[in-house]
Amino acid sequence: MTGAKWHLPVDRFFGPDPAQRQVAVELYESVADLPIISPHGHVDPGLFADENATFGTPAELLIIPDHYVFRMYYSQGIPLEALGVPWGKGEQDHRKVWQTFADHFYLFRGTPTGSWLAYVFDQVFGIREKLSGATAQAIYDQMVEKLESPEFRPRALFDRFNIEALCTTDFATDSLQHHQAIRASGWKGDIRPTFRPDDVIHLLRPNWRPNVDRLSELTGIEVRSYPALIQALEERRAFFKAMGAVATDSDGTTLVTGELSPREADEILQRAFAGGATAEDAARFFGHMLMESARMSIEDGLVMQVHFGSYRNHNQPLFDRFGPDMGCDIPFQAEFTRNLRPLLNKYGNDPRLTFIVFALDESTYSRELAPLAGHYPALKLGPAWWFNDGINGMMRYRQRVTETAGLYNTVGFADDTRSFPSIPARHDLSRRVDANWLAGLVVRDIVDVDDAREMIQDTAYRLAKQAYKFDREPGE
Amino acid sequence: MTGAKWHLPVDRFFGPDPAQRQVAVELYESVADLPIISPHGHVDPGLFADENATFGTPAELLIIPDHYVFRMYYSQGIPLEALGVPWGKGEQDHRKVWQTFADHFYLFRGTPTGSWLAYVFDQVFGIREKLSGATAQAIYDQMVEKLESPEFRPRALFDRFNIEALCTTDFATDSLQHHQAIRASGWKGDIRPTFRPDDVIHLLRPNWRPNVDRLSELTGIEVRSYPALIQALEERRAFFKAMGAVATDSDGTTLVTGELSPREADEILQRAFAGGATAEDAARFFGHMLMESARMSIEDGLVMQVHFGSYRNHNQPLFDRFGPDMGCDIPFQAEFTRNLRPLLNKYGNDPRLTFIVFALDESTYSRELAPLAGHYPALKLGPAWWFNDGINGMMRYRQRVTETAGLYNTVGFADDTRSFPSIPARHDLSRRVDANWLAGLVVRDIVDVDDAREMIQDTAYRLAKQAYKFDREPGE
Amino acid sequence: MTGAKWHLPVDRFFGPDPAQRQVAVELYESVADLPIISPHGHVDPGLFADENATFGTPAELLIIPDHYVFRMYYSQGIPLEALGVPWGKGEQDHRKVWQTFADHFYLFRGTPTGSWLAYVFDQVFGIREKLSGATAQAIYDQMVEKLESPEFRPRALFDRFNIEALCTTDFATDSLQHHQAIRASGWKGDIRPTFRPDDVIHLLRPNWRPNVDRLSELTGIEVRSYPALIQALEERRAFFKAMGAVATDSDGTTLVTGELSPREADEILQRAFAGGATAEDAARFFGHMLMESARMSIEDGLVMQVHFGSYRNHNQPLFDRFGPDMGCDIPFQAEFTRNLRPLLNKYGNDPRLTFIVFALDESTYSRELAPLAGHYPALKLGPAWWFNDGINGMMRYRQRVTETAGLYNTVGFADDTRSFPSIPARHDLSRRVDANWLAGLVVRDIVDVDDAREMIQDTAYRLAKQAYKFDREPGE
Repeated sequence: MTGAKWHLPVDRFFGPDPAQRQVAVELYESVADLPIISPHGHVDPGLFADENATFGTPAELLIIPDHYVFRMYYSQGIPLEALGVPWGKGEQDHRKVWQTFADHFYLFRGTPTGSWLAYVFDQVFGIREKLSGATAQAIYDQMVEKLESPEFRPRALFDRFNIEALCTTDFATDSLQHHQAIRASGWKGDIRPTFRPDDVIHLLRPNWRPNVDRLSELTGIEVRSYPALIQALEERRAFFKAMGAVATDSDGTTLVTGELSPREADEILQRAFAGGATAEDAARFFGHMLMESARMSIEDGLVMQVHFGSYRNHNQPLFDRFGPDMGCDIPFQAEFTRNLRPLLNKYGNDPRLTFIVFALDESTYSRELAPLAGHYPALKLGPAWWFNDGINGMMRYRQRVTETAGLYNTVGFADDTRSFPSIPARHDLSRRVDANWLAGLVVRDIVDVDDAREMIQDTAYRLAKQAYKFDREPGE
Repeated sequence: MTGAKWHLPVDRFFGPDPAQRQVAVELYESVADLPIISPHGHVDPGLFADENATFGTPAELLIIPDHYVFRMYYSQGIPLEALGVPWGKGEQDHRKVWQTFADHFYLFRGTPTGSWLAYVFDQVFGIREKLSGATAQAIYDQMVEKLESPEFRPRALFDRFNIEALCTTDFATDSLQHHQAIRASGWKGDIRPTFRPDDVIHLLRPNWRPNVDRLSELTGIEVRSYPALIQALEERRAFFKAMGAVATDSDGTTLVTGELSPREADEILQRAFAGGATAEDAARFFGHMLMESARMSIEDGLVMQVHFGSYRNHNQPLFDRFGPDMGCDIPFQAEFTRNLRPLLNKYGNDPRLTFIVFALDESTYSRELAPLAGHYPALKLGPAWWFNDGINGMMRYRQRVTETAGLYNTVGFADDTRSFPSIPARHDLSRRVDANWLAGLVVRDIVDVDDAREMIQDTAYRLAKQAYKFDREPGE
Repeated sequence: MTGAKWHLPVDRFFGPDPAQRQVAVELYESVADLPIISPHGHVDPGLFADENATFGTPAELLIIPDHYVFRMYYSQGIPLEALGVPWGKGEQDHRKVWQTFADHFYLFRGTPTGSWLAYVFDQVFGIREKLSGATAQAIYDQMVEKLESPEFRPRALFDRFNIEALCTTDFATDSLQHHQAIRASGWKGDIRPTFRPDDVIHLLRPNWRPNVDRLSELTGIEVRSYPALIQALEERRAFFKAMGAVATDSDGTTLVTGELSPREADEILQRAFAGGATAEDAARFFGHMLMESARMSIEDGLVMQVHFGSYRNHNQPLFDRFGPDMGCDIPFQAEFTRNLRPLLNKYGNDPRLTFIVFALDESTYSRELAPLAGHYPALKLGPAWWFNDGINGMMRYRQRVTETAGLYNTVGFADDTRSFPSIPARHDLSRRVDANWLAGLVVRDIVDVDDAREMIQDTAYRLAKQAYKFDREPGE
């Protein structure tokens, strides 16, 4: 297999039927060069704070920070340490890490991670040889050389990738120092924080109390009561908004929404301060804070995102050794019809609210989420996400959502990535999948080609721009 | 886009592969002109009671009565009142309603509602221009002119649509006056009532008590005890049957079946009369009444239909303002393996019973319903329905059901529509989807073409005719 | 239709696109003649114990032992007795049984059972005429003639089918006399037992107590305490392993895993001996025994299989008349993320364990099982199985599993059949489906053809060989 090249023809990922492929190519080409809007992800803003920042070694670029990648090796019995994980504690010789990565690269056959990585090698780095045990070291050398060049610094790639806006995810207690540094530097890259209050509203999270203390410190509000917590959160939201934030995000590990009286909320909070909050307390408090989040979003205009249904750190022994983000967050069954009803009944009829739900349980797409989004003015569906953003996952999303919710209750693509160089690969994949899906509708005469030409602009660019309000002036 | 036409080529909705398409066309053409059997739906029988009845304005025909249509606009922040909803209370200027409808018609891109409406305009009304803000008023004018002509009266369209039998849905307390008027008029259209006892057996429904009183009045039986309720229901079933009914229908918002002793049933009923029935009482009583319904069906031969799993009137504020059928019934997770076991164990082995289950939770198709239908003689699966009767939804049904249940434990298509003019569009779509599905089996050599030619006759006509016993003499 | 032939062209089951079909044919041909590894099934080893054993009548070969077949007839109101079921108690005239079978053979249109039977007639028996009421008796005659010939004895077909290894399923208390007889006979067919302890670890199974007594008798250990039970099981595992077993299997009708203290386990066991074990006792004990099974597998190297989620003998009246395996085991909703966590947390990080999960609830594929298998080193996913091993079911499996778990956390195909002659048909179908799936990836440039050529070898042969350790020396 030595001598094998990456195989990325211009019409890749399109169905084989010549008529469909021709339409798919036309639709894809009409959006291939559009700027990228990345409204939801986990790229480190520190990469852009200093114009001379670099990505480090190839292993630091592609393997060590990306649990999408290393979990697959771990599942095959390869210790995380052999992949240099966790950062600084695993194998220190990154050439060895790279060799292990290359030796088992076949594990990614047929996976989206495999497709993204092929794009990164071939399209971003201009490396034509397929990665394998035999080519590992030569490719490592090429990568190192590129990564040392000015063209491969984060800001340079940001420009080359044609990113119009990139939203990061930042805790409520984050100082946003990197975002401040980016602004102060005069660089024009549009990188925005997203307000994520989970660490101060999930009462049973590790470090909840120190995080609340930090919140007090940052805001000057002594957060010892429910009204003070609300006031502090509102102040932080205002700060994030001033720093360019367009949205909030929360991790709905419990799913039930529901309103508490201020008194009930405060009683639960006091139990948490006393160290005696129960799981039920935490779930009720979080469900109430989602309601409050909706209220605040109506008031300050921040788009409200919630992603639902991941059992965090499922592998307790691994968590105990290495901490979070080790590739062992596992989805579970979700229920939205009953659980979102309190929130939707109170705020879902208000068109000023944009409430975007990301779901991992695909059985809810056609059963619950599409009917809900096809009714409530405030509710929009986030795209196929995380485990579901491969070609099949994205097609299942379109096929299960569109007939009931239409296209216009969805919000375009979100890459949700920690891996900055995979951003163009992921958006390209999404644009290709949508082009192919729409071409399939055209050749079946389900939509006509005029409509499809509009729809591809919507999926690739407009829907994200509108949903996250990048098309409006601040405060509009 | 002005000047754009509807695009309904003769081979629409078929896959692009030329070999498959050729077979699909042949199969479709063999059933395209078969009469329509519509065994389950919600068309107003009053439309046919008077030979001079009309459909009213274009908005009264296509928008105001059809929550499939207006929910999509509502989901995008357009008030229901702007669409003339609810009837008589919304915008009174139907030209304005029509303009709003047309301005946002693009919302239906890629949806079955979009396909049905295109059919109605192009095939039923002969209007070639695509609906848009620009063409709205001219199309309104054309519609009005047609709707005033004798050819577009309900009875005329019934004949033109080639409807062999149409079943309506009627409450147990309905006088069936419209069905009586149709019979008395001498018109030959075959329109039959369906017995729906929900309003007198769901103990917590609004107006349960007045409905029971009405039942007493209609039957002359004082319905104050469980035996009297059973007797009154049996009498109403006999009346419906005499009026042509072939089936019953119930809305299974709770899913558990199970038998109560007559004494338990009466105790619950007395609590309901006293205003003290609990949700659990209501669920147990309903579950018991499903068992009784099966017993009665074995005795009187009426086909028993139950549709499961919709959370009615999910949007409480909207329900409080406008009442039911506002497009906010939302499916939820269903469970059939355990919940139907009591009924199936008692009556499911009896081939005299035909028990047709309609499900909204597609995850139950391959997991529960196809295995159950592939075993119990009494159980048959209703088609993909409501949110799931688009092209993708129907294909999912065939692909998830057939391998386990075969074709012959299914019952053909049901349009379930409130929109009379959409009936031919819906049946045409169903016939096309099945033709395309079968053509896919033929070109993969999963079935041979001889078998496929039989199967398309089954799906388009025979299965519905047999399952609902239109092929038998009354009492046979 | 008289004169109709079976239609099994060489490129059957492949998609219609010429480019895809060409690749599919190439991939399929590269594995079509590979030996069959059948690691999980229910063939009677007694068929091979005596070189002169025969299959009996055509009805005894294809209908009476196969609930896949007769359940479909029962679902259409045909009494099981008319099909000769149960063995010895139904219709004794097997020509009559055959006629009934043939008269309704159309019920299998579009089902995998129909495809397997077509293969058996055409490819195994060389009968070209399609089975129908008209051809039934002539085909019966041909079948009888073949079945009486030496070429159609079980051992002869085993060789002709090119079966490299066949695993049966055998209760912990089975003497393995047939396996012993096979070994003693000097015949070289590789037939291995699989250790299934369910009858002694499901405390509420009918005959649990006599089965435990039998276990005592076989091992000479008086199984009256939890430690004695563990000791006896370990001894039986050693015996099975000595007889060639490579794996264990359990039926997870309850799904929760979790560890008990030895004292708790013994207390539950004593309640069971006293006849007072509750359903919760039984569930907790079984969940604990799964944990123990994992521990033992790490120690003795037997692969651990568990299949989850079937409601056994759902039809109580039928079970009361005819006993188990009457085609009325019905899947139900499963949950793995929470339920398997105790086992996976304790043993899932150990690469010495191979824990293969077979699931019936397809909604868990992408939501739970693929993420779990894509993380835990011990966990592998069993293939689409039982109700899901048709063409659509297998494609759903590939499309929902691969993007997250990759190919290498799956284990190839298992036929799970009771019908020996269907083995080559089932493996051929699986190989064709995988060839077509991979060809679809190739023509979409998701994998290149070099990778696809490796992957088809993996799915057709290597993955099963590796997962079940047929590629290792015993004890390795």
